[in-house]
Amino acid sequence: MPGTRDRIMDSSAELFRRQGYAGTGVKQIVAAANAPFGSLYHFFPGGKEQLGAEAIRTSGRLYAELFATIAAQAPDVTTAVREFFSGAAETLVETDYADACPIATVALEVSSTNEQLREACAEVFDGWITGATMYFSAAGIPPGRARELAFSMLCLLEGAFVFCRAMRSTEPLRVAGESAAAATRSALADAGL
Amino acid sequence: MPGTRDRIMDSSAELFRRQGYAGTGVKQIVAAANAPFGSLYHFFPGGKEQLGAEAIRTSGRLYAELFATIAAQAPDVTTAVREFFSGAAETLVETDYADACPIATVALEVSSTNEQLREACAEVFDGWITGATMYFSAAGIPPGRARELAFSMLCLLEGAFVFCRAMRSTEPLRVAGESAAAATRSALADAGL
Repeated sequence: MPGTRDRIMDSSAELFRRQGYAGTGVKQIVAAANAPFGSLYHFFPGGKEQLGAEAIRTSGRLYAELFATIAAQAPDVTTAVREFFSGAAETLVETDYADACPIATVALEVSSTNEQLREACAEVFDGWITGATMYFSAAGIPPGRARELAFSMLCLLEGAFVFCRAMRSTEPLRVAGESAAAATRSALADAGL
Repeated sequence: MPGTRDRIMDSSAELFRRQGYAGTGVKQIVAAANAPFGSLYHFFPGGKEQLGAEAIRTSGRLYAELFATIAAQAPDVTTAVREFFSGAAETLVETDYADACPIATVALEVSSTNEQLREACAEVFDGWITGATMYFSAAGIPPGRARELAFSMLCLLEGAFVFCRAMRSTEPLRVAGESAAAATRSALADAGL
């Protein structure tokens, strides 16, 4: 069993991505983590806000690593993109449409209300865009086009998550994944690849 | 000045899309609406949940009408798609990155926690997909492809909103709009148009 601090962090991240930041209370977090109430402020003296910022950064890093793992195992760039979307669809079904993007729920809530948490989200998103841009560049797509492709792929993914969760359907992710794969093929073809 | 009921509805919709459902209290709503506290339960006996469901449906309908207005005035389908995204970017800048999708913030919060509100979001999204599919079909794109294009356009838009608000930049919307325009041109070309 993970230590108390890790359990609190894992429970926070799960509750925040499933039901948002404002809708999650610290009592619910410690209950889900099976942790004594005082331990939350022992490990996170900044309370819920510190937990929120750390959960955003930790979840964001794990999600970037997931993409890197899928990309490293895929036979080619277009397959990697398609598998990123189909893997996300599998996770959604397995979790009864609860687990999609680890930070989008919080990002939409806090962008106009909490500058510390907005900055954490922006940092994570910047990292994702930079990582995907580098991946597409390394495959031979010119940097400017690679950045556009990174944005398109991630916008399609994030948007599909909104529709899939509300509609309880994987159709949006399937269609968005095909659209991202088509954009990738097109960028590769334009680069003579 | 609009009547009390309309003011309560407008304030609710604005607060929900900017800061979410859980983070918005009924006291904040009546204060923003400049309405007496009791009037909220007079006009909305179901309280915050009824307000949430009505705000989702009303905002969703208005947003569909906005797309229809832009589409009716645009010289062609691809221009309509591009203008939908550039108009959204202008609104974001004018509102200091607060007003993006009228219902996505709530959709992500409630999809796993409140079945009544999730269903309202799903109904609105279904209506958007159907409306955009009909629009692309009327332009000569076969229905199956038109539905895929509708999903891609709306996923790109919703995803771009998440990135734009957190990153305080319109770059994601600009890139997503070009990507949606390219997908539209491609669907038209494949239909021989």
